[in-house]
Amino acid sequence: MDPSQVKIPPMKDQTVDNITDNVITINSLCEDERMKYILERLVTHLHDFARETRLSGDEWMTGLRFLTEVGQICTDVRQEYILLSDVLGLSILVDSIDHPKPKGSTEGTVLGPFHTHDAEEMPPGDSMSHDPKGEPLLVVCTLKDMAGRPIEGVKIDIWETDSTGHYDVQYAGREGPDGRCIMRSDGSGVFWFKAITPVPYPIPHDGPVGRLLKKLHRHPYRPSHMHFMFEKEGYDHLITYVFFFFLDIGDVANLRSALYLRNDPYETSDAVFGVKDSLTVDIGKADAEIAKKYNVPEGHALLTYDFVLVSDEETSQLRAHNSKIALDKLGRKVKIVNGLPIPDLD
Amino acid sequence: MDPSQVKIPPMKDQTVDNITDNVITINSLCEDERMKYILERLVTHLHDFARETRLSGDEWMTGLRFLTEVGQICTDVRQEYILLSDVLGLSILVDSIDHPKPKGSTEGTVLGPFHTHDAEEMPPGDSMSHDPKGEPLLVVCTLKDMAGRPIEGVKIDIWETDSTGHYDVQYAGREGPDGRCIMRSDGSGVFWFKAITPVPYPIPHDGPVGRLLKKLHRHPYRPSHMHFMFEKEGYDHLITYVFFFFLDIGDVANLRSALYLRNDPYETSDAVFGVKDSLTVDIGKADAEIAKKYNVPEGHALLTYDFVLVSDEETSQLRAHNSKIALDKLGRKVKIVNGLPIPDLD
Repeated sequence: MDPSQVKIPPMKDQTVDNITDNVITINSLCEDERMKYILERLVTHLHDFARETRLSGDEWMTGLRFLTEVGQICTDVRQEYILLSDVLGLSILVDSIDHPKPKGSTEGTVLGPFHTHDAEEMPPGDSMSHDPKGEPLLVVCTLKDMAGRPIEGVKIDIWETDSTGHYDVQYAGREGPDGRCIMRSDGSGVFWFKAITPVPYPIPHDGPVGRLLKKLHRHPYRPSHMHFMFEKEGYDHLITYVFFFFLDIGDVANLRSALYLRNDPYETSDAVFGVKDSLTVDIGKADAEIAKKYNVPEGHALLTYDFVLVSDEETSQLRAHNSKIALDKLGRKVKIVNGLPIPDLD
Repeated sequence: MDPSQVKIPPMKDQTVDNITDNVITINSLCEDERMKYILERLVTHLHDFARETRLSGDEWMTGLRFLTEVGQICTDVRQEYILLSDVLGLSILVDSIDHPKPKGSTEGTVLGPFHTHDAEEMPPGDSMSHDPKGEPLLVVCTLKDMAGRPIEGVKIDIWETDSTGHYDVQYAGREGPDGRCIMRSDGSGVFWFKAITPVPYPIPHDGPVGRLLKKLHRHPYRPSHMHFMFEKEGYDHLITYVFFFFLDIGDVANLRSALYLRNDPYETSDAVFGVKDSLTVDIGKADAEIAKKYNVPEGHALLTYDFVLVSDEETSQLRAHNSKIALDKLGRKVKIVNGLPIPDLD
């Protein structure tokens, strides 16, 4: 760079007290107002964190080494930074901010690191899992808008682990997708398929995030759940799942393998903070009518759930409303540009 | 983990408002009080950052991808996370917190990513640089304590770039150290050696940190400087450097190659915020006495500097004093354990 192009206000002799303002100033030539605002808040919080902890040089180096290792263990099919964000509660927080849900609509939750883009679209009633050791499960769902009208033609991405608690991508020899499919809702807003009863499983904990959890005396388990992701133009993208619990032992004895499903032990201590009451279901049994309609034996394990999608318009209004309230608390005058706040300097 | 060992307070239905307290609670089983405090402040600031920016899912993913790339470009001889910390002003801040300097002592500054552990110890007067294109420089320094007494036997690590602005480790074919040495102060607190006149250079900017700087319209340059690191039992470990400026053109015309040394253009815009007035020097010329004593031609380029080291004891007292003041501002009752604050719950 040509030295004559150095356009930064003169700054030297940084101290504990002036460094934050100076870094914000040196970053202020950025032309992207949103990025500039994000950097301003990032630098402020990063520096306050160091000042409030009186972070030592050794701790700083330990932290940088940890962040380096988190990056270095990432591959095409392992995203340790998402895991780190998950276990620190950042992922669920960002989802709550970005996809606020009006009362009556289905709540969102964390994406997790195991979604792929190669799931196959399957016709209604098809089986998404080929694990012979899984407990067969019939899933029948409806999809409606806030006014209770069925929504047709929504693309629904669904994924779950096999009966050992592993996603297909966690196997070295993976040749294609399994335990995942894409469905479309029909004219009545219905989609149905065959799956296996989910089991609890640990998030990958053989890397730096697992070591962190261990030091914090936290377990790495997630309660049994099945992932759903909904996409249709005009509707807010919804990432959610249904959590499975098995409280009524008498009714569902045939569905449970010995230990891990009894009163899912991780319901209130999910390693990634995803559980919501509104997303929690019990496994039911197919009655004679259902059995006949969906061609399964009477008494077959059954999951039903009624999803409610929110329009893009409703979501962005609620998002902007929440942003204004939050930023008023900061005492900052902001404006909303492309749905996101930036300082209003006028 | 045995489900019966789940000892976390029940928590689900996380919202924008309760998630921070809940993550802090789930981390509270950690037995290391200092780590628990660091995690508490980290989670608080991380979440406040997301709440105050209303961070979107896309921005969150962009951030995680960036952090992944910063980790993945790191090697044995490239530490991009230190660079990132440097350009965000965190490194200089942590040094200021961890190594507070009483008035009259030599100020510290950032370590940077180019220190190695393989520099050779050299006798007084030896040459640390073998770059024939470098401008020869005689360096004569003293090392004293706060009372002005010489300090003998201090281990001094010194490193600088070659005349093109590259450290030895930046060359693929590196066979051993060059542009670096270890000196020991003698009974008069003196150490002296031969080097080359430093030049400004860019920090490595072909990776994610360079891309960040570019988006922020920041240049990657550091003004000319030479690194020094001092170690002796009983004295605070000091990392510092001397910055070189060339204001007096008449005097030092023979030392400068054409452009980059004239009024170092990066003095007030160092990419990593390291410049301090007290560490800034002009290059002088050896007079007849110096020339004879150190066996160089009269008029030879000369750097002299008097370093003042602080004892461990003084540093830790000042550090604890500063910590108490800073944490009073937080309204937190804390105690100092091993020189670092943790909440005082008694």
